[in-house]
This record gives sequence, structure tokens and C-alpha cells, in this order.
Amino acid sequence: MTHGPEHRFGEATLTVLDAAGTPLPETELVVEQTRHAFGFGNIGFDFVDLANGAGDADTEHLADLYTDVFNTATLPFYWGRFEPTRGEPDTTRLRTTAEWFRDRGIALKGHPLVWHTVQPDWLLGLPSDEVEELQRQRIRREVSGFAGVIDTWDAINEVVIMPVFDNGDNAITPLARARGRIPMVRMAFDEARAANPHATLLLNDFDLSSAYECLIEGVLEAGVHLDAIGLQTHMHQGYWGEETMLAMVDRFARYGLPLHLTETSLVSGDLMPAHIVDLNDHQVPSWPSTPEGEARQADDVERHYRSLVGHPAVEAITYWGITDAGAWLGAPIGLVRADGTPKPSYDALRRLVKEEWWLGPTTVRTDGHGQVRVRGFRGDYRAEVGGTTTAFVVDDAAAAVQIVV
Amino acid sequence: MTHGPEHRFGEATLTVLDAAGTPLPETELVVEQTRHAFGFGNIGFDFVDLANGAGDADTEHLADLYTDVFNTATLPFYWGRFEPTRGEPDTTRLRTTAEWFRDRGIALKGHPLVWHTVQPDWLLGLPSDEVEELQRQRIRREVSGFAGVIDTWDAINEVVIMPVFDNGDNAITPLARARGRIPMVRMAFDEARAANPHATLLLNDFDLSSAYECLIEGVLEAGVHLDAIGLQTHMHQGYWGEETMLAMVDRFARYGLPLHLTETSLVSGDLMPAHIVDLNDHQVPSWPSTPEGEARQADDVERHYRSLVGHPAVEAITYWGITDAGAWLGAPIGLVRADGTPKPSYDALRRLVKEEWWLGPTTVRTDGHGQVRVRGFRGDYRAEVGGTTTAFVVDDAAAAVQIVV
Repeated sequence: MTHGPEHRFGEATLTVLDAAGTPLPETELVVEQTRHAFGFGNIGFDFVDLANGAGDADTEHLADLYTDVFNTATLPFYWGRFEPTRGEPDTTRLRTTAEWFRDRGIALKGHPLVWHTVQPDWLLGLPSDEVEELQRQRIRREVSGFAGVIDTWDAINEVVIMPVFDNGDNAITPLARARGRIPMVRMAFDEARAANPHATLLLNDFDLSSAYECLIEGVLEAGVHLDAIGLQTHMHQGYWGEETMLAMVDRFARYGLPLHLTETSLVSGDLMPAHIVDLNDHQVPSWPSTPEGEARQADDVERHYRSLVGHPAVEAITYWGITDAGAWLGAPIGLVRADGTPKPSYDALRRLVKEEWWLGPTTVRTDGHGQVRVRGFRGDYRAEVGGTTTAFVVDDAAAAVQIVV
Repeated sequence: MTHGPEHRFGEATLTVLDAAGTPLPETELVVEQTRHAFGFGNIGFDFVDLANGAGDADTEHLADLYTDVFNTATLPFYWGRFEPTRGEPDTTRLRTTAEWFRDRGIALKGHPLVWHTVQPDWLLGLPSDEVEELQRQRIRREVSGFAGVIDTWDAINEVVIMPVFDNGDNAITPLARARGRIPMVRMAFDEARAANPHATLLLNDFDLSSAYECLIEGVLEAGVHLDAIGLQTHMHQGYWGEETMLAMVDRFARYGLPLHLTETSLVSGDLMPAHIVDLNDHQVPSWPSTPEGEARQADDVERHYRSLVGHPAVEAITYWGITDAGAWLGAPIGLVRADGTPKPSYDALRRLVKEEWWLGPTTVRTDGHGQVRVRGFRGDYRAEVGGTTTAFVVDDAAAAVQIVV
């Protein structure tokens, strides 16, 4: 059986029947988990080429490592890269990538619909009203165009800093300054919601101070419906520790909304100096992964996931990088080395996600009434008996499932 | 004439008439300013005893220094000190103090109606609903009871930190955490507004980061009407400089509301070390005023006032201390030494407020139509001609004033 925090468990009662509907007592089944309800995510940026037919053996191997652990992939929709030339969005390639993931049982998330960074140059100099209209159109285009394949979006990213961001020209900061933060959030959510009423829409930020609380409270008071609160935790300067992390999570859990740890990174090399405020300001020619760093990262990853999976408000953790190759800031934050070999952190996370918190193929036997109770981490399961495979869900509703042999 | 930034000036055209209504050409008048429209405030905490008949010569001298420069006094309504025993508020003493100031031409401001610090012990342990009701009653009692004498209030203080404040037990933090920041602001403003529809009500904070912007935007989106935004600037760690200060003011000016610099302090001794985050954490046995510190403070005060009076959105600056005696944190932030002698900062501020930005008694002469234009810092003025004194106002509406001799 699986081990883990009580609130992550669910159960289902299986009744095995013959074709005439008679319960089959003392009958063996093999049950096993096929998917976690909890979102174990990572970025899917590295697989766009592979999904579009331009992969190689190394990337295929990386994909195997990825799909063995993660059930959710964040895909890049940075406007400036997605549509560097006006009117020529990268839709086809991203759709193929999203479908590639979906076909491997991996749910998709798009990131982000509105942000002040990685903006297209062609927005610069346009009047605010036009920028706003183009931004609205872009939200509708992406969210409706990908509906059914990508149903989770960072609707708007880093709003706390948005109207005062001063690291480079962009068209969104002046718009946010003119309109205000809450109207920007409302715009993003209104457009995305209208384009896909079933989407899970997040507000996402790296600023986890009182500022984000104030923003969220303002947004909620203004009647904007958030499906989840996104919390970035890039820890290039070192793991914060369970106490600090959970105190932060508690502050945001009080809004009664699901929490997604949307962007987690932990380095397996030297830590970034603590005095650096904007992580982007730290540029080093080489930032190697080290044996000591990898041991520390493995420990950090395990503590981070264990503590957050232990918090009832957290519904997803997205790690920000599968490989060191091409990682943000050149930092060794991957779970896999640039040479394609898994780091200890990968093994530690896989052990949690696919062993300790996972029900592998397990033989169970029905009782005198033809019933057997399956308890495990909430998620998708299947049962195999007499050549018949039946899918079922384990959640906190304690479903009753009939299996006809 | 006075000198200063253009946006501070106003004018009035005086027409001098005889009793029959005939204009008197080439007639001399003496005009002079009697009050600034701009709020030059300070705390009035030191004069409660004096106003209540328990003063001494030193305090009377201090009062003379005070009333010669300041036109607005902030009085202390900290709930825990105002009503240390439930049902026994310090109303009479504070009313006498307020009237004492009013009789000296000084407008009053009450500080604060809602805050998580300096709370009465008797609130502790009461259920949230009862704390809220008592808080509402207390707002109504003070605001209606002092209406007409105190018509400006810090309706709520330091809301950014309010729900997460953890420096000592109090009944307001749990209430703010349960209700949310914006409902707390709404409560304070709704109650105060209902109790005195003519009051000027402020949100006031020391946190001038994006968090306060987010709070303000949320409050405004929620439809709460703020009369002014209060910005604290306690500079025990050194004057921030014009550039930093005005950049901050610009950020808050974009909401189109008047800005009040509600709490300014600048030390005339050693600076508090820069690493201290909560100023209350710096406790020293003795913190003397020094000659070098006094010279620096005078320079800082002049730069601070000159730059802020120069910003069109700023309508008031309240300095946080007239004397070092009993100053907050024991810091030498007063404009007057503990021995009652004015520091250079006092002289510098007086020179600005009552000389450079002030029209002293000035002889002017009507033209051929019996008219003369008076231009000066906006505020109250009077004209004396032929034994008749007439009060008039200089503002940006360019009033026409008739003076009948």
C-alpha cells in the first residue's frame, strides 16, 4: 500500500460480478494506480522539437524520464516568442507538442497569457487602447484555440510588479500602470474564462510577500473568480526549509483556494549569493552541478515535496526544469544532468511519486460478497481480473465500482 | 512676496470701496497671510497636560514654538491608551486639548481609529464578532463626539501588515485575518463616514512598497472612498533623498488622490543602523542630539519639505515630534532639544513656512479702479485699511473680494 498524508488518500469499493450479475467471492484481482490526482508537473519546454518530429535519442531518453514521474507539463506561451512576428503565432508547433503530451497521459498548462516580460517588439509604441485590445485578442486566441488540450493557464503573471517593472521597455507595464492591477487581472480572467469556461485559471507570482496577499484580496473583493493561486518558489539561493515554506503556504491557504506551487527550482551546485534580489541579475559563465550539490538537491527536493504534499491546500507542484541543458540562468536546477543521466534528486522524486505515494500492481481478493476495498493516493486506477481491465477512480467520495467479468 | 513652486500659489483681487460703494483708487492697505492652506502638521501629544491646566513655563514656551510654525496637530487616539479601562474613554481631556489647539488656529487630526498596536487588554479573548462591534462603536463614538473639532482622521493604520502582524497579542490582527484587509478598511471608512460625513478620512501606512499600492488599488476597486492617502516616512536610518522620496510619491500620486506625508521624522544624532527592519527593534539607552547631527537634520528637513511642497499631489506634511523629550524610541527626532531650545531644523522649517512661503504684513496700493491683486501661497489672508480688517482667501479660484471701509 501507499504511505503519505491522510488527506491525500481516497478509496473505492470494487464489486466483481459475473455476466449474470452474481457477485464473485474470493476472486483475485490485480489493481494498480495509473495516474495521480495531485499535479506533479514540470516544464515541457524541452520536448517541443521532439514532439514536432525533430527529436534525437537523447531527448527521447529524457522524455522517458519525464513521463515516468510527471503528469502535468507547462508549455511556453511567452508572447514575444510565441508570436515574434505579428500575425504569425507558433500555434501549430505548440498544438502538436500539447497533443504529444496528452497522448502520453500528461495534462497541459499554458504559461503565461499576460506578462510584462518576453513581449513582442511590435507592441512597443502602440497606443494603450490598441495594446489592450491586442492583448485581449491574444488571450482569446490561445485559450479558445487550445481548449480541450490545454485547460489550465497562468492567466496573468507577476502582477504585483507589473505596473512598476522597469527592467526594459515593454508595452504591458504602461498599460498596467494606466489601468491598475485589478483591471489587468480582470481582463485576463474575463477573456480566458469566456474563451474556455472549463479552464482552470491561475494568478501567478514570485512576490509572496504581503503585496501578493493585498493583490489577491483586492482581486477577490472585486469579484474576479480565481481557480487557484500560483506561488513561484525559485530557490537558487537555497531551500527555504519546511517551516518557512509552510508558513508562506498557510498565509495563502487562508483564501480557501487551491494552491499551485507553479515554479520550483533547487540547485545542485553552488547557491546564488543571498544578497541578489532579482535572480536575473546573477549571470555566471559556468554553473556546474557538483556531487555535494546533487546530494543536497536530492534532500531538498524530498523535503520540499514531502512537506507540500502534506499540506491540504496544495494541489500541484511544478518543478521548473527536467534537465540542466538550457536551464534558466544556466543554473543546475535540473533533475537530470546535461549529459542525460538522472541526478539523485530525480531518483528521490521518482521514489516518492511512483513508489511511496503510488500503488503498483497489487493482487487483492474479494470477500464473501464479491467486494474488495482499494485505498490509495487519490487518482486513476485500474483493476484486471479474468482478462478484463476496468478503470476506476480513487477519491474521497469512496466510489462503488462494478467490475463485470 | 513669497517664493515657491507655482502650483502652491493663488490670488485674490481686492476692491476697496467706501460706504457708498464707490471704489477708492490709490489707497494703501496692509495685507498679510494668516494661515497656510497646505497642512504643516506636527504631533500635539506634548500639550495634552498644558491644555488641561497642568502646564509649566517650559511647555508654554514649547507651545509658542509649535504654534508659530504648525497649523495642524495630530492628537493621540490609540485605543489602548484612550480607553485603558472599558467604558472610561479619555474623551474630556482630549476634547479640551483639541479645543485648545483650535482656539490657536490649529486644525486637528485624530490618529488612529483602527490599528493593531496599542490595543486595550480588555479586548483580548473576546470573540471576533464582539471585537468588530466594539471597534465599530469606538469609531462612531470618537468621530461623532469630536465632529466639528476634529474633522480629519487616520481611519485605519498600517493595514498591509495588520492580518499578519505578530509582535504581541492583540484583538485586531485575528479580526483582520478573519475578515480580510479590504473589509477592515471598509469598516473603518463606513463607520467614520457615517459618523461625520464632512470628515477627511485617510488610509495610513509605513509600508510604501508595492504592497500598499496593491492594497489601495483593491480598496478603490471595492468602492471605498479615500479622501487622502497617508504615507509615513520615519527616517531614523537617514533621509532618503529627494529622488527616492519623489519616486515614491509619484507611485502613489497616480491614484489621483491627495497625499499626506503623515509621519515624518529625521534624527539629529547618530543614524539607526540600516539593517534594522522594524524600527521598534532598535533600543538604545541614550540617543543624544549632536551638533553634526543637528546640522544634517536641518539640511534634511529643508530638502524634505522643499521637495514635497514642490510636488502637486502633496497636501500635508506632518512632522512626528516637536521635542526630543519623550520622543518615540528616544530618538533625537525633535525640532526642539529636550532643554527647550530650538534646533537648526526648527529655524530652517520656520524660515520656509513663515518667511519664504509666507506673505508677512505688506503695504499695497489700489489702482485707479480701487483694485489690487494679491498673489501668494494659498491660504487665509487679511487686509487692513482705515481701521477695518477683512479676512479673505487666496486660492486658485482667483477670488474677487470687496472691502468696505
